[in-house]
Amino acid sequence: MRVRLGVAAVIACVAAAVPGRADEGMWMLHQLPEIDARLRTMGLELTPKQIWDPATNTGLASAIPWLGGCTSSFVSPDGLIITNHHCAFGAVQMNSTPAHDYITDGFLAATRADELPARAQRVWVFKGYEDVTAKLRPYIEAGAAPLQRTRALEAREKQLVAECEASGLHCRIAEMYGGGEFYMFRQLELRDVRLVYAPARAIGEFGGEIDNWMWPRHTGDYSFFRAYVGPDGKPADYSPSNVPFKPDRFLKLAPAGVKAGDFTMIIGYPGRTMRYRIAALVAQDAEFGYPYQIKLLSDWIAVLDRRAGTGKDVEIKVASVVKGLANAMKKYQGMVEGLTKEDLAGRRRAEEAKLQAWIDADPARKAKWGDVLPALDAQAAAGAATRERDILVRYLPRVGSLLPAALTIVRWSQQSGKPDVERDLGFQARDERTIRMRLRTMQRNLDIPTDRAVLAFFFERAAALPAGQRLPALDAALAATGKTGGAAVAALVEEVLGRTSLADEKTRLGLLGLDEAAVAAKHDSLLDFAIALRRDVETVEDEGKTAEGVLIELTPHYIDALAAFRGAPLYPDANSTIRFTAATVKGYSPRDGVYDEPFTTLPGVIAKCGPVAPFNCPRRLTDAYAKGGFGPYVAAPLGAVPACFLSTNDITGGNSGSPIMNGNGELVGLAFDGNYESMTSDYVFSNTLSRTINVDIRYVLWCMDYVDNAHALMREMGVEPAHR
Amino acid sequence: MRVRLGVAAVIACVAAAVPGRADEGMWMLHQLPEIDARLRTMGLELTPKQIWDPATNTGLASAIPWLGGCTSSFVSPDGLIITNHHCAFGAVQMNSTPAHDYITDGFLAATRADELPARAQRVWVFKGYEDVTAKLRPYIEAGAAPLQRTRALEAREKQLVAECEASGLHCRIAEMYGGGEFYMFRQLELRDVRLVYAPARAIGEFGGEIDNWMWPRHTGDYSFFRAYVGPDGKPADYSPSNVPFKPDRFLKLAPAGVKAGDFTMIIGYPGRTMRYRIAALVAQDAEFGYPYQIKLLSDWIAVLDRRAGTGKDVEIKVASVVKGLANAMKKYQGMVEGLTKEDLAGRRRAEEAKLQAWIDADPARKAKWGDVLPALDAQAAAGAATRERDILVRYLPRVGSLLPAALTIVRWSQQSGKPDVERDLGFQARDERTIRMRLRTMQRNLDIPTDRAVLAFFFERAAALPAGQRLPALDAALAATGKTGGAAVAALVEEVLGRTSLADEKTRLGLLGLDEAAVAAKHDSLLDFAIALRRDVETVEDEGKTAEGVLIELTPHYIDALAAFRGAPLYPDANSTIRFTAATVKGYSPRDGVYDEPFTTLPGVIAKCGPVAPFNCPRRLTDAYAKGGFGPYVAAPLGAVPACFLSTNDITGGNSGSPIMNGNGELVGLAFDGNYESMTSDYVFSNTLSRTINVDIRYVLWCMDYVDNAHALMREMGVEPAHR
Repeated sequence: MRVRLGVAAVIACVAAAVPGRADEGMWMLHQLPEIDARLRTMGLELTPKQIWDPATNTGLASAIPWLGGCTSSFVSPDGLIITNHHCAFGAVQMNSTPAHDYITDGFLAATRADELPARAQRVWVFKGYEDVTAKLRPYIEAGAAPLQRTRALEAREKQLVAECEASGLHCRIAEMYGGGEFYMFRQLELRDVRLVYAPARAIGEFGGEIDNWMWPRHTGDYSFFRAYVGPDGKPADYSPSNVPFKPDRFLKLAPAGVKAGDFTMIIGYPGRTMRYRIAALVAQDAEFGYPYQIKLLSDWIAVLDRRAGTGKDVEIKVASVVKGLANAMKKYQGMVEGLTKEDLAGRRRAEEAKLQAWIDADPARKAKWGDVLPALDAQAAAGAATRERDILVRYLPRVGSLLPAALTIVRWSQQSGKPDVERDLGFQARDERTIRMRLRTMQRNLDIPTDRAVLAFFFERAAALPAGQRLPALDAALAATGKTGGAAVAALVEEVLGRTSLADEKTRLGLLGLDEAAVAAKHDSLLDFAIALRRDVETVEDEGKTAEGVLIELTPHYIDALAAFRGAPLYPDANSTIRFTAATVKGYSPRDGVYDEPFTTLPGVIAKCGPVAPFNCPRRLTDAYAKGGFGPYVAAPLGAVPACFLSTNDITGGNSGSPIMNGNGELVGLAFDGNYESMTSDYVFSNTLSRTINVDIRYVLWCMDYVDNAHALMREMGVEPAHR
Repeated sequence: MRVRLGVAAVIACVAAAVPGRADEGMWMLHQLPEIDARLRTMGLELTPKQIWDPATNTGLASAIPWLGGCTSSFVSPDGLIITNHHCAFGAVQMNSTPAHDYITDGFLAATRADELPARAQRVWVFKGYEDVTAKLRPYIEAGAAPLQRTRALEAREKQLVAECEASGLHCRIAEMYGGGEFYMFRQLELRDVRLVYAPARAIGEFGGEIDNWMWPRHTGDYSFFRAYVGPDGKPADYSPSNVPFKPDRFLKLAPAGVKAGDFTMIIGYPGRTMRYRIAALVAQDAEFGYPYQIKLLSDWIAVLDRRAGTGKDVEIKVASVVKGLANAMKKYQGMVEGLTKEDLAGRRRAEEAKLQAWIDADPARKAKWGDVLPALDAQAAAGAATRERDILVRYLPRVGSLLPAALTIVRWSQQSGKPDVERDLGFQARDERTIRMRLRTMQRNLDIPTDRAVLAFFFERAAALPAGQRLPALDAALAATGKTGGAAVAALVEEVLGRTSLADEKTRLGLLGLDEAAVAAKHDSLLDFAIALRRDVETVEDEGKTAEGVLIELTPHYIDALAAFRGAPLYPDANSTIRFTAATVKGYSPRDGVYDEPFTTLPGVIAKCGPVAPFNCPRRLTDAYAKGGFGPYVAAPLGAVPACFLSTNDITGGNSGSPIMNGNGELVGLAFDGNYESMTSDYVFSNTLSRTINVDIRYVLWCMDYVDNAHALMREMGVEPAHR
């Protein structure tokens, strides 16, 4: 679940939709009236308008900001934000040093003045969305060639976004149903975010990689940020004179929590699902995409682990990347296991055969949709021809720190001269601040020997690409060393990193203003290599856009056929836009003879404690437990403080940190993971097996109250501490 | 659970007793009236006399023979016996060849004439027991020195056994409560035992070492023997003219099985428990005894695995030993984990402190028992001085085939000249047949290179013993090679096995008649070494008897004190005598957040099936399942055929193959294992965690009916097959 990687496993293809069965469905907020009757039966007390009223742009959703890869909630009128510990991990790490090891010990700001800047962190407050399909569909239906179609659509999108952002809000267009519908999402972007409180790692990340994706779970995966704005109330960069942001809405806590069978709902920003990805692509994922990436990530982690072993400072610098890679790898392993075990490709193939037969059975249907599935299959087969190369190129932004920085600088120099609407997405004027921040904050974790090691690792992989998938820039650069094999790779790393000045923060930031010619004139070894490599990457990007152009035309037809075939309400695949999922607190049977209970408890945390990480409970936790105060946080049916609980909510990566709420919209916990069996729920949700893992608000409060004495924060959230 | 090793982990010390709480207790049959009220409440429908009536020596217990390390039941009037697959494994292995691989494929005798001799197997039919305490206690109270005390007691026991065996029955005296009481057990020993039916290994041993001790479990751990007697109805060696044995009593099957919450009882022969072993010894076990043996067995298994890798025939020959060692090792690992985790030594120490305080609080108690605990502690400390040597010597009977044979021949030659009552236990006239059979049947699995490898392994270990624990015979023999280290060991193996004729069956059996001088005159290299080694072993044995003499005097005082301190009914520790345990079908929570259901199912078996052993379900099983006939074996609450189930019965190794019965004494399954958490139940039974794992009679019948077409056997047991 803890996937914060920007890399996608495979090219997004069929963002299809499935009929809403039971607790399945990541619904768009404007769809709630469609399923309202069922929600009411399940236990929802709020009306759709109380959750989000498109007319007034008010409701519960306003309290739930996106963190970029994670979800969060406002929990006080003073911009206090709760999210997962693993979502705040980067901020904790950024502020840690060997002398102040907040990762291990946790951090609690004694006063607001002590809150620590989380410089790389942004908070995007939900400000509503609108349907812009009518403004974009004509560009798909215009009959242009695929690459041109994609480009025209992108240009129009940029134009619309620019118009929207004139309001001062951050805007983004998201396509739904594979391009059948388009929505413009508005967010208020807050740039001064501060770390307020994170528990010790052995609470917030208790169980670590061992327990990740697992049940029973005992992780106190929570942390707090606070959003700040300028004294004028407007978004501003960090400044000591800034003031707490006043959200339109914040969530109330429900310290009584929930019990088995209770209704729960989650609002958040699920990243990506592939609920109706075609069989051919599912088979490619299971047989090639995931296995290839598992090997890649496993070797990559080994490279970083060797570096981490050289010293505490390096260990801290690479911790966050290792965490991300390891989490992705575990997810991919679960995917392969799940997809294979459930033979999802085979089941999809059978389903598609039925759909095709149904289409073929009627001349009108056949005329309309007869060619869609065969065309999608052909596109999938074509895409497989460059699969190794495409995956490697997708990982480029994570190949150390310096090469990604160089690629960004080069691309910026190429784009910044053009009119804004012609510039690549992510390289427009609106993106400069983010890019500049990234180029600055990367200094914190920069470790040249690690960059060398990762670059060598990547070059070796790329040098081994099959014929027809080569990266010409790399081939040329390796040949130019006059050496072969490992010696060539070593020489190229030396050549590329040996004469670069990008490791200097000031130099690096200074380069971002320059045009293409000026960058080339620097004759910086790394920039020169990046200029050549960008040409290869552009080729890959253009091929991707061509495929996109094909798919955006085909997929809505496929979805239409599917909708007609099924005749049931649809929800679109997840795409990091705000969604709603309703469910029940419920255990499950992971296998014959075993029932996983819906709750774990504080005594269960204590039972797992031991001398070795990730189970090395902090002394103040075990002392507090031994002392025996549990306040009002004991759940009567359990006779103990609940630690984590399971619910049938339909979530995925990106939902991390999401508030899980009772029927009145009160906070009863935070979603932070899915169970192992839910990994394949990105492809297919299972009511019997897919579960969301939540940290119980009662465990959060007990830790705040009895372990960390975070009493001021509790009072700020309207909860009176029990511990004196 | 599958411990059939004759080796004991540690010297049996305090065979104490604990108060009967809930389902705890391995009760002697004559004790049933004491706990009858509770049994009736739990759901037992039979009276104590229906289970065993000492007056008439009749009852259910007559249907439950001992197999030597396992338990079994008669299930037809024609001597048909059901037990565990792992209890019949040796017999299956003995009859297997690379051409007829009954281990893998299973075996079903088409007719009675096709039943295969299980030559090493005996069946001991229960024929009652009586209290002989009054005849033996005086020898303890006579005030002799410890070694003399033990010898006098042994001599008297042998005398009483000889008197008892005049009846033609097999007799054995067992001490209870550490020597506070003595009982004479009578058994009819049947020597012609045949293998009737064993399912394929991937049913009977499904899950293998991976699932051993684990839940959820899906093992069809059952097999059938038949006992034969001479045409005169008397026990006889194997002969084609023998006829089926007619038991006094056989068990009826209950094809309806049991459901969660139902009463169950088990009668069987639990091997050994240490329910009130003193803290000092528990600490020795946890900190030294088990860890030392784990390392020893792990290395030993590696030696055998290397041999097994050289060919299918060797693999078959070493299979049974590897199985036994691996099972013991896993048990010891669980022991260390459990004892450490639960800090059993610490808890016992606290309990003993309370007992001592209670004793010391009253002058009369202090006078009677004040010195007992300190004396037991001193004895435990003294025993630790030779702990490495004592463990190694205890494993001597398993060091290959030839050295144990030589040690037996030498000892027999030394003993056979004495009057019978003066001979060592196990080396009296009554034992000749068994010894002769063992010396014959060992030929089947004899593999000289394996013997060499194991002998070298053992010599290396023994050569590394600490000073003060050396085996002089081995030291001398190694020195005589003129070499040191590994070279000396290799030379000694060559010397000892190079010029021996014991590998020849006829020669070996011929040696058993000879006296000490005649054996020495053979100048057989292995016999010469065994003669020297026997002297060392005798020293160890005498030290053991001295310790026994001390303990048999002390322990009953300790038990008396404990009984007075507790004031509750007591049951004696297990010692391979017949016992009764009453319980309930019930799941458990192995850890916070998880509940292990009491039943697994046939679909759960299928879900575990895969291409690789031990999960490589036979095709005829998966075909039968796919075909979909389940007859009357489906359990309504589960909607499927149950595979295995859990009960709270208090059992241990030796109970393997025991009938588990409903309140009417009808067979509902076979006990075959304990859960992982029950490993430490040899020390302390836990109502919340200790569980017996049983194969459900409905799974046995479904396999017989639909998978193996064992219809004739079903009809013999009075069950009409459903499959046509």
